[in-house]
Amino acid sequence: MNPHVRHLRRTLPATVTLAHGGGGSAMRDLIEGVFIAAFTDSDAPLEDQACFDLAALAAVGDRLAFTTDSFVVDPLFFPGGDIGTLAVCGTINDIAMGGAHPVALSCAMIVEEGLPVEILRRVAASMAETARAAGVPIVTGDTKVVARGACDKLFVTTTGIGVVRAGAHIGIGRARPGDIVLVNGLLGDHGAAILSARGDLALDSAIESDCAPLHGLVGVLLDAAPGTRSLRDATRGGVAAVLNELAEASGVGVRLRELDLPVRPEVVGFCEILGLDPLYLANEGKLVAVVPPEEAEAALAALRAHPLGREARAIGRIVETRPGRVVMETRFGGERIVDMLVGDQLPRIC
Amino acid sequence: MNPHVRHLRRTLPATVTLAHGGGGSAMRDLIEGVFIAAFTDSDAPLEDQACFDLAALAAVGDRLAFTTDSFVVDPLFFPGGDIGTLAVCGTINDIAMGGAHPVALSCAMIVEEGLPVEILRRVAASMAETARAAGVPIVTGDTKVVARGACDKLFVTTTGIGVVRAGAHIGIGRARPGDIVLVNGLLGDHGAAILSARGDLALDSAIESDCAPLHGLVGVLLDAAPGTRSLRDATRGGVAAVLNELAEASGVGVRLRELDLPVRPEVVGFCEILGLDPLYLANEGKLVAVVPPEEAEAALAALRAHPLGREARAIGRIVETRPGRVVMETRFGGERIVDMLVGDQLPRIC
Repeated sequence: MNPHVRHLRRTLPATVTLAHGGGGSAMRDLIEGVFIAAFTDSDAPLEDQACFDLAALAAVGDRLAFTTDSFVVDPLFFPGGDIGTLAVCGTINDIAMGGAHPVALSCAMIVEEGLPVEILRRVAASMAETARAAGVPIVTGDTKVVARGACDKLFVTTTGIGVVRAGAHIGIGRARPGDIVLVNGLLGDHGAAILSARGDLALDSAIESDCAPLHGLVGVLLDAAPGTRSLRDATRGGVAAVLNELAEASGVGVRLRELDLPVRPEVVGFCEILGLDPLYLANEGKLVAVVPPEEAEAALAALRAHPLGREARAIGRIVETRPGRVVMETRFGGERIVDMLVGDQLPRIC
Repeated sequence: MNPHVRHLRRTLPATVTLAHGGGGSAMRDLIEGVFIAAFTDSDAPLEDQACFDLAALAAVGDRLAFTTDSFVVDPLFFPGGDIGTLAVCGTINDIAMGGAHPVALSCAMIVEEGLPVEILRRVAASMAETARAAGVPIVTGDTKVVARGACDKLFVTTTGIGVVRAGAHIGIGRARPGDIVLVNGLLGDHGAAILSARGDLALDSAIESDCAPLHGLVGVLLDAAPGTRSLRDATRGGVAAVLNELAEASGVGVRLRELDLPVRPEVVGFCEILGLDPLYLANEGKLVAVVPPEEAEAALAALRAHPLGREARAIGRIVETRPGRVVMETRFGGERIVDMLVGDQLPRIC
């Protein structure tokens, strides 16, 4: 968009119509009135195609990272965030988990006809605010509108590019026996917040989503523990899914200690009532890090010194025995296998 | 994904279930059984995050291009393509229109519970085939599943990265009086094909979508006409929308000659029956190029020598008069304003 068309902006109607996805002047009005209005304080203007100087990127690191995620969370707004904060944080975190510094995001919206424009404005505003606070601008986008009933309100797909720091070699298949498993804080808040926000459980809880961008935290972690083997944000499927993937991919066993798992008492209670396991609950601001033993202490100290890692903890270790398996030493001294679930405990959690 | 988990693949059920979007083993089975199976012949494996050597990118050009598009076309399959070919070509074309060489795509799918897995396989296969033929691998992806009724079958969001060739400065605001407006072929085929594929018109037509990746064509065009000012693929809103945006953004007038517009007789007939105008119909393999007058002949010759530009034609010129307006000299010697529509003539055209 450009200054020549700015003065043509008309007042938007109260709800989104099919014409807003049609490529004509109504779409332009919507994009200008909602998205440009929210995103232009970012570092770059919103265009059909965004451009970055390759030499400037190469000054940050040696590899370009590229990742995408769709967000279909229900409800759109929940304690601690909304689909917009989730879409920005989720993709920033996917980039960060490769040891990369996030550079920019794209944002593609699929909107249901009839959605109040005010809802779009609120989502765009929280995307813009989250992106600005994270220092990662939203630089390009797309909007499609489908007829009433053809989608549920709003889906958002964000894609990110980033630059991997030179020397970082992080992967889900790199864990080795002896390594230590860390998490940066309390588990299960996002899953519990969404479930309680759906309201059909008539549970009154004050649990908020932990939705947060983790690239700053990863930065301090990698400074302190440059030998970090694996990083993964524990979203759908929770810490259990991450550790099962890691055990399989690395051909190692993982041993957890139940007593070391940091879970908020409200989430423990919530899970007990509903028969859920916090290890499987989704998080949106929690990472699992596997670090070599000699760097574990420094890694933990670095995480704890960061606002998003105050409750960081070592929750287990990588072992040779039972490769491909995650085993938990229970609080009663027994042990049980933490298997991968077939699906999530909850649909549309992110 | 990695070899360790390969042997665990189970037989997929006939339809997609909510568990396939849950982050657990069912999702892994779906991703492995459908997407990895289709995409692994690409140059890079499908991972959570894909990586590219920045030095290798910098050898191709000086700027990184980044663009995204969601596809919600209805029906999913139509003469000449499907949502998969569209999603691959559409994003390749957005990258190419900035004068960039496309490097890779990401693919995020939102799937309705109950969709036959066979449909996903067909879409993944045509994405893979189109990407392979174009030389642009699909390197990363995401899959979400929503409950029956929460989306209409399947939405696909592709995001692309590319490298802009050094020296290319192409933009919608760069047209100048005297420049020549070219198109690379017959207009309106995609819009007509989709409309007729919907079947509710009981029109029997053999019109196929023109869906095609245009980066090769753009390459030969820029070799022949390095001073090219503007390039835009004429998708939603058709050639009329592109030229109106260009007229406004560049602060110039555009004059078209109706007699020079290349439209297939079947599409002319189709439009006459339905009261549509081919200038507003969507294309998925057609670009509008604005080139300086001294390069117009070479540009046209280069387009015509390429398989996707055989019917290329000069359709008009950029003028000083009536800035912001597109005016057509009609076949009867009169003139009319080609305005921007409020919306598209057809929803869910791409």
